[in-house]
Amino acid sequence: IETIEDKKNPAIVGLDPDFSKIPGFLKKMHSAKHGKTFEAVALTIFDFNSQIIEAVKKIVPAVKLQTAFYEQYGPWGVWAMGETAKAASAAKLVVLIDGKRNDIGNTSQAYADGFLGKVDVFGEKKKSFDADALTVNAYLGSDSVTPFIKVCKENGSGIFVLVKTSNPSSSELQDQEVNGKKVYEIMAENVNKWGQEVIGERGYSSVGAVVGATFPEQAKTLRKLMPKAIFLVPGYGAQGGGADDVVPCFNEDGRGAIVNSSRGIIFAYQNKGNDEKFALFAKEAAEQMKEVLNASLKKAGIHL
Amino acid sequence: IETIEDKKNPAIVGLDPDFSKIPGFLKKMHSAKHGKTFEAVALTIFDFNSQIIEAVKKIVPAVKLQTAFYEQYGPWGVWAMGETAKAASAAKLVVLIDGKRNDIGNTSQAYADGFLGKVDVFGEKKKSFDADALTVNAYLGSDSVTPFIKVCKENGSGIFVLVKTSNPSSSELQDQEVNGKKVYEIMAENVNKWGQEVIGERGYSSVGAVVGATFPEQAKTLRKLMPKAIFLVPGYGAQGGGADDVVPCFNEDGRGAIVNSSRGIIFAYQNKGNDEKFALFAKEAAEQMKEVLNASLKKAGIHL
Repeated sequence: IETIEDKKNPAIVGLDPDFSKIPGFLKKMHSAKHGKTFEAVALTIFDFNSQIIEAVKKIVPAVKLQTAFYEQYGPWGVWAMGETAKAASAAKLVVLIDGKRNDIGNTSQAYADGFLGKVDVFGEKKKSFDADALTVNAYLGSDSVTPFIKVCKENGSGIFVLVKTSNPSSSELQDQEVNGKKVYEIMAENVNKWGQEVIGERGYSSVGAVVGATFPEQAKTLRKLMPKAIFLVPGYGAQGGGADDVVPCFNEDGRGAIVNSSRGIIFAYQNKGNDEKFALFAKEAAEQMKEVLNASLKKAGIHL
Repeated sequence: IETIEDKKNPAIVGLDPDFSKIPGFLKKMHSAKHGKTFEAVALTIFDFNSQIIEAVKKIVPAVKLQTAFYEQYGPWGVWAMGETAKAASAAKLVVLIDGKRNDIGNTSQAYADGFLGKVDVFGEKKKSFDADALTVNAYLGSDSVTPFIKVCKENGSGIFVLVKTSNPSSSELQDQEVNGKKVYEIMAENVNKWGQEVIGERGYSSVGAVVGATFPEQAKTLRKLMPKAIFLVPGYGAQGGGADDVVPCFNEDGRGAIVNSSRGIIFAYQNKGNDEKFALFAKEAAEQMKEVLNASLKKAGIHL
């Protein structure tokens, strides 16, 4: 909340480094040195991310790393994710890891320790990733979520539980009705309940919710069901959500939501004929998103 | 199916290397050489897993790697997972990765390529993990699952979709009723539908289902709803599921289910006063599980 206020910006950048979209000159540089190897892939990704982080660090409050685009390259990919988190953290950005992790209790504990807490390395407590928050899928119910909340409490970190996702098929299960309530509403009530014990001094909980930008009507209902949850809002831009669509995700005080854009920011350089300046294009896209979001919020009477 | 028939055993071993339970002498050996480092943790895990694999390779058809216990140690942990998968694959074991991954379409594609297919490394197609199957959480609906099915089709690999999980809280969402059907039944119908296009010559689909050993009554219903799905059955042993409980997960021909045990096998050495022989205790526990399962199946008129 503080960093959003400082930067007057609730927009965050998704570092989803789809390798096929990374500028060719960067790839050439690293493969020339390290061959056609996973190491060269990882160095390319980290180089790309580092330059994006440098370009947007004064504009946005946070970055979101999508685990799939890293771990698809095995240990080297996960190395690039860890280094990216470290670089973002050093640039004073809040770091969210979008892993949608989920499992039974003792296994969730391992995820929680690894991503949000510390692990025991021969008697010494060490951080595996420089992350502040993790996305979590709660199809397994409460006992799969409570280990994360315990670690959040101990470490001042946070989770975002999938409530209503941005993809078209999200309706298949999430919109089903159970005793007159939608599944996403039941999940929202759970999020509200789980979050009660970890509410911070600014009145928001460490347990947040993922609510897609593509469903503004549902967002209105969800905002009421989870007044103290921060909404992580994906689906802006490339997936079709517009600035006006995300307004219902905010509380009237302008707090309570962060809006993610990935492709629209980090690959803004595409088809502009000047690949070397990819970071500059990302910076401009981030500034533009900030302006557009602020304008939509202002129109709705919300001032950051 | 072939390897189950060869070994007359539907029991698989879960390689969930909870570090606190790994024999102390192994930890000392690797930390003496490599210090109190993530590298030493990874080498300890890989050493432990390698010896378990060697001990059980002629008894069980497959191993299941729980991602949380690896990735909690960052890139080194994921290295240990990759090496373990490679070693298991070299020992002719089927390798399941229990990651419960889930995301929107293009991101699911990245998970599918990384875990089950191949990724592009500067124009060369390479495998990131030596895995045959991955567990998947389908809270996001069809479009989050179809990229996995496409990759299964192309690579002869498989997925197991979470239907009814083994943990106590699984009832919270999974047992809710929608128009007279439980959520897990709806999910089962989806699994059956998704699996139709990838049915192999033995009559089973590449799309399987996770059905907990702790819910035998529900398993009966689920077996009927998904006749062509292979059930991956967790929750046996430490979580409370017994051999008779898993019988309803099998079809009458003795096919259609694999039963996982993790702690009960790999940490069978605990409190036996002979830590150096941990692999031997694992072997005995695996043999015992095979016997007990076969006895329960036989009692129910099912012969492998």
